[in-house]
Amino acid sequence: MNKNATPHKSPLYLCAPVNALVEGVYEERIPYSKIKEHGDFGLGTFDNLDGEMVMLDGNIFQITSDGRVHQRDETSETPFACVTFYHPATHDELKKKSSYEEFTTWLESLLPSPNIFYAIRIEGTYSYIRVRSVPKQDSYKPLVEVAKEQPVFEFTNIKGTLAGFYTPAFMSSLNVPGLHLHFLSSDFQSGGHLLECRSENVRAGVQFINSLELSLPMSLDYLTLDFQRDIEDDLDKAEK
Amino acid sequence: MNKNATPHKSPLYLCAPVNALVEGVYEERIPYSKIKEHGDFGLGTFDNLDGEMVMLDGNIFQITSDGRVHQRDETSETPFACVTFYHPATHDELKKKSSYEEFTTWLESLLPSPNIFYAIRIEGTYSYIRVRSVPKQDSYKPLVEVAKEQPVFEFTNIKGTLAGFYTPAFMSSLNVPGLHLHFLSSDFQSGGHLLECRSENVRAGVQFINSLELSLPMSLDYLTLDFQRDIEDDLDKAEK
Repeated sequence: MNKNATPHKSPLYLCAPVNALVEGVYEERIPYSKIKEHGDFGLGTFDNLDGEMVMLDGNIFQITSDGRVHQRDETSETPFACVTFYHPATHDELKKKSSYEEFTTWLESLLPSPNIFYAIRIEGTYSYIRVRSVPKQDSYKPLVEVAKEQPVFEFTNIKGTLAGFYTPAFMSSLNVPGLHLHFLSSDFQSGGHLLECRSENVRAGVQFINSLELSLPMSLDYLTLDFQRDIEDDLDKAEK
Repeated sequence: MNKNATPHKSPLYLCAPVNALVEGVYEERIPYSKIKEHGDFGLGTFDNLDGEMVMLDGNIFQITSDGRVHQRDETSETPFACVTFYHPATHDELKKKSSYEEFTTWLESLLPSPNIFYAIRIEGTYSYIRVRSVPKQDSYKPLVEVAKEQPVFEFTNIKGTLAGFYTPAFMSSLNVPGLHLHFLSSDFQSGGHLLECRSENVRAGVQFINSLELSLPMSLDYLTLDFQRDIEDDLDKAEK
């Protein structure tokens, strides 16, 4: 690890464990004003699972299931968000046309250990990108069921930002394990949860994070949830 | 949950995930001066797995594998400790002679949800108690192997303090799941990791904790560890 790669003191912050979301706890009414006390960068969703969230430089963007992008203010509420104050330690470029496998292999090569967190922000152009959003839920059903009906959007020759995190596999009950990235186009017209891409010319900033702050909800829904079920399969299906 | 049972703002603090300890990372040289920034109450061990640690009112006690108790200062170092600032929300008494099953059933009845953390401090007398310590390790072997050779100590009609935590099952990679208690006798002559007891007359203080702070070690041992193995069986054997 080079000396510039010292972890910044800002922890990775989770306002809830992701397994609660996977089990269908879609409403916690945590205002983004609270989330922003813990970071200016990250991803998540909104209450009632109303779309994908990406936070860049403290700005909160919502990609709803119709594919549209909305800037939201701090009064918006969420059941799940993962944020940090973004201070990248390293920057690297991938200038050649790359398949999704080449792109993710390159990204993972920037992460020296699988046992800590990383915040990752990638700016660049994509010859192809496929993203999804999630439809707002009126009643509760498990995330894996919702994901079966998720709207998927494809774009070609698009410029934008991918923002997200790498989480060690052994913390899969708390946060989506491995790479988890949300996309926002440079023209703020489209975005979503990344499913696949082919990159043209990208630059990735990576922040090494070796601490976690996790809040556990105190709602009746959360406190009475039965977590005995192994959610790893569901999480995998819901996120990929 | 009654209104006195509001979670205190002090989080549960872990200086490392317990799975690193289970895999044999017994030396992280984290001084107790750092641990005490995060709590005055808790449990853990010492570098090279040199015995069991119990912290009461900011005092650090070590129970070595010869069964002796030593008070240690803040320069002592550890690979694993779990602490909080202890502010109990509730107090309850169990005044009748109770088997271990009755005792743990009573304790669990004081915890209204299995999905948050609790700090638990129990003062009282025991007609019987069985504890263990762990022997200092010169070389690295998995905790489950070390635990096979653990010295076990039994006491009758003994007064003392049990201190520890309840952790939700879905965080078993981070902290020992369920109830995890260390014992220190009132005369400071004996103690260890609780294996079994029969209680006579005990009073339990319980603190509700709904936030976690976790530090990830930046040692080469930790960063290069292969966590692919499922350690749940090992943890169960090593702790029971």
